[in-house]
Amino acid sequence: MPTPIAIALGDPAGIGPEIVAKTWERREAEGLPSFFAVGDLRAVEAVWRGPVSAISDPGEAEACFPGALPVIQLESGGTTVPGAPDLDGARNSLDALELAVGLTRSGAASALVTGPVSKAQLYSVGFVHAGQTEFVAERCGVSSDLVAMMLLGPSLKTVPVTVHLPLRDVPDMLTSDRIVAKGRATARGLQRQWGIESPRIAVAGLNPHAGEDGAMGREDLDVIVPALERLREEGIEVTGPHSADTLFHAAMRSRYDAALCMYHDQALIPVKTLHFDEGVNMTLGLPIVRTSPDHGTAFEIAGKDIASAGAMIAAVRTAADCAERVSRL
Amino acid sequence: MPTPIAIALGDPAGIGPEIVAKTWERREAEGLPSFFAVGDLRAVEAVWRGPVSAISDPGEAEACFPGALPVIQLESGGTTVPGAPDLDGARNSLDALELAVGLTRSGAASALVTGPVSKAQLYSVGFVHAGQTEFVAERCGVSSDLVAMMLLGPSLKTVPVTVHLPLRDVPDMLTSDRIVAKGRATARGLQRQWGIESPRIAVAGLNPHAGEDGAMGREDLDVIVPALERLREEGIEVTGPHSADTLFHAAMRSRYDAALCMYHDQALIPVKTLHFDEGVNMTLGLPIVRTSPDHGTAFEIAGKDIASAGAMIAAVRTAADCAERVSRL
Repeated sequence: MPTPIAIALGDPAGIGPEIVAKTWERREAEGLPSFFAVGDLRAVEAVWRGPVSAISDPGEAEACFPGALPVIQLESGGTTVPGAPDLDGARNSLDALELAVGLTRSGAASALVTGPVSKAQLYSVGFVHAGQTEFVAERCGVSSDLVAMMLLGPSLKTVPVTVHLPLRDVPDMLTSDRIVAKGRATARGLQRQWGIESPRIAVAGLNPHAGEDGAMGREDLDVIVPALERLREEGIEVTGPHSADTLFHAAMRSRYDAALCMYHDQALIPVKTLHFDEGVNMTLGLPIVRTSPDHGTAFEIAGKDIASAGAMIAAVRTAADCAERVSRL
Repeated sequence: MPTPIAIALGDPAGIGPEIVAKTWERREAEGLPSFFAVGDLRAVEAVWRGPVSAISDPGEAEACFPGALPVIQLESGGTTVPGAPDLDGARNSLDALELAVGLTRSGAASALVTGPVSKAQLYSVGFVHAGQTEFVAERCGVSSDLVAMMLLGPSLKTVPVTVHLPLRDVPDMLTSDRIVAKGRATARGLQRQWGIESPRIAVAGLNPHAGEDGAMGREDLDVIVPALERLREEGIEVTGPHSADTLFHAAMRSRYDAALCMYHDQALIPVKTLHFDEGVNMTLGLPIVRTSPDHGTAFEIAGKDIASAGAMIAAVRTAADCAERVSRL
């Protein structure tokens, strides 16, 4: 019997509590495995009238799950008003993340799903990491250079080499070393978590038409091509650099398992254009399985019962599937 | 009775002749209006066994069209081998473009559709314009700063502010003036050619998450926001800058008529991801209607009878629809 999945609720004033509750409501229809939430139970009760059950140990989740949403209670000092984030809520989201990571690392949970947090709020309470991904990597003892963020929907997986940078800084931050590191993490992740023995990775160019042989920028030739050669020497099947605009249509998508992209929007535009309501963010390169719904706290719609749980459901399902594959290794 | 549409065949060694012939084959099934090709008739015969009829005047096209593909013959000095471009073919594609533009400007044709050419080949024969668009603009007496390239499929229209530049040069080339010029051309084009009285234009940010209030790059605040204010002062309905990754999913697409994008791949990735086989490139800001299929010469598959005519069919239909709207103004 696999252990349950741990879901950190995210910011209690965001849509995290609501979409976790809605995911529990859909547990049978979606065929989801047992999970438990970590966070302030009152944040769930503030937006949802369904059954909630406080548990103190993940071992209790399995028995409780059919009849109520199990929550490991981490009381927030604040009042938790949906849509009104405060510093107590930010601290609570950080405590929940810390505990959920620990439970997953210990094996008490089979995978970690993280709800949406507000970085601005976290920074206000002294959070020193760039985001949840970097925090989780550190707690797992892995350098954040060696992990990679994968965005995925039913028909496309992309991994950006650079992420939260001004577009102006992308060309100089793009080095062959970084491309190799992310390409390697992508290949290993596809093997380990997705069970793809010989992953095929398509690499997008940086410039329009991948630079047209240097006519529109040299990076494709000078930085990307050498990185692909190094990846091939390691036995990783990579193609490219491809013209990014023609890389994501259906016929092309059938020819690779993941696309390695050079910057944030190049990776996220195609995934969110195709799979907006079910986009999942997954961290590759960790010793644990970690996913999250690929959207933010959406404070402006919190507590209105209109948030879609599609991406959270997809994040839980992806985490469960990947954890099952990893457990068989 | 509207005059027929003029189609410049493009490079005779590319897939242009084949997809024009295939478009003629589909004329009834697709409900296409009369059109005639301009170029080397032998290039069509080299790849297609259907009926071709040499005409010397667009006025003959209408009567001829039901039974044969009308072609205004411009003999190439070369041999026209599919897949083997040569300089005679490049000259021929340029002559065909020149004549087709002239016939459309004179009113002998109701709209212009241009087949794919090879820029590298054109440059070799002394072509001094950046591309066909700039050539057409000059012949129409319009500064190329005032025209805009629109990429479109059935569910999305995008207009890039900057186009064929290395990504590194985009931030510095992006000025408020350029954004205003392209925004204006987009609004006028949507009104004139698309019959949308009060067009809604969504503007993409340059940086990830549109810069997050300056945390990831200043251009969204310092360059794009002032441009949007100027466009609003002119009575143009613009929103943004929007986070580009969440701008192109179905629910967002229903909220605007066109998206103004900051660079090539930002505009082309979503259109080609959604509508690869039917992508149309349209030039806004000209006194004539001009479209083209949004793909290249594809020399590598020329003459193999495997090229899809989907984009050429869409280009002809779009040209016909827009010409009909313009004729009613």
